[in-house]
Parts: sequence; structure tokens; C-alpha cells
Amino acid sequence: MNDEALLQRALDLAHGALALSNPNPRVGCVLARADGTVIGEGHTQRAGEAHAEVMALRQARDNGHDLRGSTAFVTLEPCSHHGRTPPCCDALVAAGVARVVVATTDPNPQVAGNGLRRLREAGVQVDLLPPGHPLSLGSRRLNIGFFSRMLRQRPWVRLKIAASLDGITALPDGQSQWITGEAARHDGHHWRARACAVLTGAGTVLEDNPRLDARVPGLVRQPHLVVIDSRLDTPTEARLFEPPAEPGRRAVWLYHAGAAPERVAALQARGAQTTALAGAGGKVDLAAVFADLARREVNEVHVEAGAKLNASLLREGQVDELLVYLAPSLLGQGAGIAPFGPLHSLDQRVALQWQALQPIGDDLRVTALVRGRDAFLSAPSTDRSA
Amino acid sequence: MNDEALLQRALDLAHGALALSNPNPRVGCVLARADGTVIGEGHTQRAGEAHAEVMALRQARDNGHDLRGSTAFVTLEPCSHHGRTPPCCDALVAAGVARVVVATTDPNPQVAGNGLRRLREAGVQVDLLPPGHPLSLGSRRLNIGFFSRMLRQRPWVRLKIAASLDGITALPDGQSQWITGEAARHDGHHWRARACAVLTGAGTVLEDNPRLDARVPGLVRQPHLVVIDSRLDTPTEARLFEPPAEPGRRAVWLYHAGAAPERVAALQARGAQTTALAGAGGKVDLAAVFADLARREVNEVHVEAGAKLNASLLREGQVDELLVYLAPSLLGQGAGIAPFGPLHSLDQRVALQWQALQPIGDDLRVTALVRGRDAFLSAPSTDRSA
Repeated sequence: MNDEALLQRALDLAHGALALSNPNPRVGCVLARADGTVIGEGHTQRAGEAHAEVMALRQARDNGHDLRGSTAFVTLEPCSHHGRTPPCCDALVAAGVARVVVATTDPNPQVAGNGLRRLREAGVQVDLLPPGHPLSLGSRRLNIGFFSRMLRQRPWVRLKIAASLDGITALPDGQSQWITGEAARHDGHHWRARACAVLTGAGTVLEDNPRLDARVPGLVRQPHLVVIDSRLDTPTEARLFEPPAEPGRRAVWLYHAGAAPERVAALQARGAQTTALAGAGGKVDLAAVFADLARREVNEVHVEAGAKLNASLLREGQVDELLVYLAPSLLGQGAGIAPFGPLHSLDQRVALQWQALQPIGDDLRVTALVRGRDAFLSAPSTDRSA
Repeated sequence: MNDEALLQRALDLAHGALALSNPNPRVGCVLARADGTVIGEGHTQRAGEAHAEVMALRQARDNGHDLRGSTAFVTLEPCSHHGRTPPCCDALVAAGVARVVVATTDPNPQVAGNGLRRLREAGVQVDLLPPGHPLSLGSRRLNIGFFSRMLRQRPWVRLKIAASLDGITALPDGQSQWITGEAARHDGHHWRARACAVLTGAGTVLEDNPRLDARVPGLVRQPHLVVIDSRLDTPTEARLFEPPAEPGRRAVWLYHAGAAPERVAALQARGAQTTALAGAGGKVDLAAVFADLARREVNEVHVEAGAKLNASLLREGQVDELLVYLAPSLLGQGAGIAPFGPLHSLDQRVALQWQALQPIGDDLRVTALVRGRDAFLSAPSTDRSA
């Protein structure tokens, strides 16, 4: 295999960390001899466990391969600092790796390039892809939440919607289960699983009493749960306090706008962490919530909320991406997707950019970015070490 | 080429009659020698002009081919009656065609099989595809409006919608131009062009004053125009009375529920044909309108109306197909696609079956059938002559 194919393989491997490595980035690594023969592969494990490079080195050693003079293909700049694990740069150098091909630098402006410099200083040849290369972009897109947290100090916010083709999410009497089908709900759990946190509003908790965990067989971690709950109306007996069906502990973070101390105490006794972040008009300050979530190492937020919170999020420009399941039906009247506005000119629309269209069972999955929200991904990948 | 490929070619040719042959069906014909060499091709022309078989025979003769012993591949049973043109069966027999391969029989129960019988009686070998064959179905789908008129005594009704992804068709202040883009509007004119009639409501005439003609370069006919106008509020100076930009005359049919004689007289003086078809509550009886349109030889109706008429059509089960252009935007609040209902159970939904998904410029075109409405197409194609 040539360099490009080996790096593509590393990016494919990185997808294996999608619902696993949070809040660490999803990284893949392929070790190959100079002739292109693959001798080791790996991707990032759970936070606190091995990174991609260490996994690949381990596999190569387990199979008795000589690592000296080999090349490592990694989708993100190897780490150079002692975090929960020792630096990957040192492990590569110690193994005798002669060359490292890197798809993109670390987005953290404080560390970008340090890993590459450390490798070069140890005599390793470092080849960094140009930032416009599809594999470089692909690695950043896969880690859009991690890059968002590092570069914007806020998570990537993905709003999930299930609606009929005419944009109705619930009948006038409130019925919303099940507009979309079984396959779409199953798919939705995979999107929850990749997020660091699922976010909803107190209205949804009171009306639907959902558990909002990620029910994906084999999942070893759970996204945290965020509830926007100005007056702390979440009942202490809400199902969201039950342990998730799949293994993995999660935090329950309730953001309010100043609630009675007895409510705070009661919910904290249930294990919730409550944070007061009051905004205008007795509401929670949503921008402050996302800044706080970034500080809590949340990369991607998966929103499943009602029309009112959806509307507030869109009105305040807090939504980055839409994940919409359209059912093959018309419902006529009922709750809309997100009744923000009223707009007085089409210029005020929330402009989207289609990402992908995919039939999921009988439904149609449409993903779209809010136009311009991913501009941070195109920021040049600096290699200050070269 | 083998039989299947030759019949496929005939079906491809039939598409050339899409916006041309109304109210006649779209038919294609290929003449080939026994070894599969094509010697003539054609499709139905404008009403009153040559049918597909005659066009193919003409082309073969113009090129000096000997037609004796040849095979004709036709997508619909050749006609056996004197309509506006002499019977195609006779033309095929006179030319010495030895075999005719037919995709599907004529849907008119009064004539189905007569053409095949007439050919067989003249010593021609007739091969009719089984009704479930993709090319047989393909020919019926291409002529869904013609089959609907013949088998259901009503046209095929296609509702066109332009909306944002959240199902908003107009801002609260009424602005609806232009939610979708230039390419979608251009595409919409092609869908108007294939219809026998474009249908709208008086509300749209009063608010938008549209011309509702089909602006497609090279088009030689125009769809007729139908306005549902209970009180005959259409102004005599409405733009819909202006001659279409492209050649082709069209009728303007106004359906009302009993209007003042002076309104009737004024609109008739403008060239409109007015018909009183009163239903319940001072409204026009929509089912009666479609029955009347079928009598006027309307195969496909293209609806471009406002939310209220859309809702009435759906509430009364008059819609067969949806043609939806979704813009990459969210508008929050405004007029919905068709606010019928309110429903009290999801079982009451209008169930759809996706047909096709196609990006058109920046927009997304979604076509869907109202579930079960095309059942008449699957009715067995009877060959009572065999």
C-alpha cells in the first residue's frame, strides 16, 4: 500500500473510536514497513487507556515484528505531554519508528506542533499533510466536536429532529411517539452514543419522561445528560436518574436560572449536579451553558428537545448541525420543528448546507450544517515546528 | 439488440412525448428486422398528429427499409379505432409487420385487447409482456395520469410544494418568494409542462397573481389552467389571462360554488369557462371537479396552491402524489405545507411512499406517492384476445 492508502486505513480505524474515546479525539494509527507492509494497527481506546499509536505498537510487538525503521501513519499529531497516559511521541521514538506521516496537527493552539517538533528533534522524519488534503479534512471532520472545543471553547451542537415530511414533530394533543420508525430510533441511539452529552429541556422530561441513554449493544460508555431546567422542575423520580440499560456511568447536569434551595438539594441528593446560569427573562443562559460544557470536556452535544427549546437554541445561534429524520407521512397540524422567529425577511433564515441524505428504514435521514458554523475546521493546520 | 433491449429503447423514446402528446398516452415504437437491427423509431406526437407506430413506419420508409417480416416493439397496445387518426393496427398490418411485442394493454376497459385481437386476426404474431414485467410497469408509470383517467375516471393529482426543511412555505407576513432556488423553479416548469392542467386556488391568484404557465423552451403546448374559486373572486385583469410566454393555447377553467351572474359573465368575457360545482359549506366540490376534469381528458393535474387549498385536497383524499422541493434553510414560523387535521391519532396520518430523492441546485426534490393511490396501476393487464 502507498502512503495515501495507509493513511486512509488509519482514518478508517479512527472511526472505531467514535463512541469510545470521548472526550479524547478519535485517532487511528497504522504502522508499516518501508515497502508498505502493515505490521500494526490501532485506534484510541477509552479515556485513560491507550492511544492509537500505543495500540498499533502493541499489536506489532505482539506479532513479533521488528519496528526499527518503520513508518507510523497517524490521523492526528501524536501527543507530547503527560496526560492520563505517557506521551505517544516518546513511545514511537523508543520503538525506533523512522518516519511519521500525520493527517492534521493538534487543534489546541497551546500544543499544536509540539508533538511534531519532539519527533523531529529525536531524528524522526515527519510528513504533515497540507490542511486542504481530503484525509486531513476527514480527520478534522471526524473530530468536529474536539476541534470545536479546542478552537471555539464550545462543543459542536447537533440538533436531532424526528418529523413528518410536512415538518410536524407532535400532534396538537402532544402525541409524538412514534412518528418515525424503529430503524430511525435505532440509528438515533448511535448518534447519541457518539456524543459526549445528550441535552434536553425540562418540558421534555415532564411530558415524555425519557431515559435518554444510548441503547447500543456493546457500548462501554454513556453520554452525560444535560437538562435545561430554569426552575428545576425535573422530578426526583424522573427516569433519567435510572441507571442506563447499557454499561457506563453518566453525569446528570441540570442548568437552572436560580431555583429554590430545597429543589437544588433534592436533585443533588439524586446525584444531579446543578448549576445556576441565569440569562434574560428568567431563562437559562444557553451560551454560558455551552461554554461550561466545553470546560467539562464535552465535544459533541446531541440535542433531543421539544419545539420551544429547539426554537431558543436556533434563535440564539447555538445550533451547528441538524440531524433530521423525515417520516413518509403528512400530519397536517401540530408542533413544528423549531418555531423561532417570526422572521420578517427571508434573509433572516437559518441557512443550511446539506451534508448527507440516507434512507433509514422507511424514513429519510437528512444531515445539514448551519452555514458557516464549521469555518473553524478550515483554519490552516499550523506546523510551527517545521 | 434482443427483444428486451428493443422494448426498453421504445420506452426511452416514449419519454420524448412527456410534455407533447397530452391527452394521448406517451408511447414509443421501435421497428426492427428479425436479426434485431433497428429500422425505424418514433413516439406519439401532439394530439391529432401521428402516433408512435406511424412515426416509426414513416422513418423506416423514409430510409428505404423493407418492412415486410419486421417486428414492432410498442410500449402500449396499438389503437384499433378511428380517433383523431386512423388505427395503428391497420398501418402495421398494411406495412407487412410480422410480429408485434407490446409492453402493456390499453387501460380503457372498453377497448383493452381489441388492438391485439385485430393484429392476431390479420395473422400478426402478438407477444404481450406479463403485467409484472418492469417494462410493462414502466409504461404504465409513464402514463399514470392516462391510466388513472381510464381506470378511475379521475386524473392523477400531483401536489407541488416548495418549503424550507422545517416545512414552512411562507413567512407569517405572506412572503413566499423565493424560498427555493432558481434551479428548483426551472425544474418545476418541467413538471407543469408534463401535466394536462395546472390547478390553483383563488387565494393564490389574489395574493401572488401568478401566470402559472409552463416556461420550458421549445414547448409546443401548454397545460390548461384550473382555478378553484368558490365565489369567482379571480379578477378579470389577473395575469393568468395573459397569453403564455411559450407557444400553445390553454383553456382557463374556473370552478365555483354558485357566484353572481355578473361575475360569471365578466370572466366568461375574458375567455374563462366557468362551472358551478357546489359542495358542502359554500365550497367547491373537489371530487366533482376531478371527475369533471377527467371528462375533459385531463390525465395529470399539477397543483400549485396555498396551504388552505392544499389542506382541503388532502383532507378530502384528492392527492395522489407529492412533489416537494426542500430548501436548505429553517424559517421557524409561517404557513405550513397543508394544515389539514387536527389529527387525534398517528393512525390518521397521510401515509406516503418515497419515490425519488434528487438534489436540484441547492434544494432537494422529494417525490412521494400517497400510499395505495397507485393500486390501479397493478391491476392485471388483460389480454382478452389471446
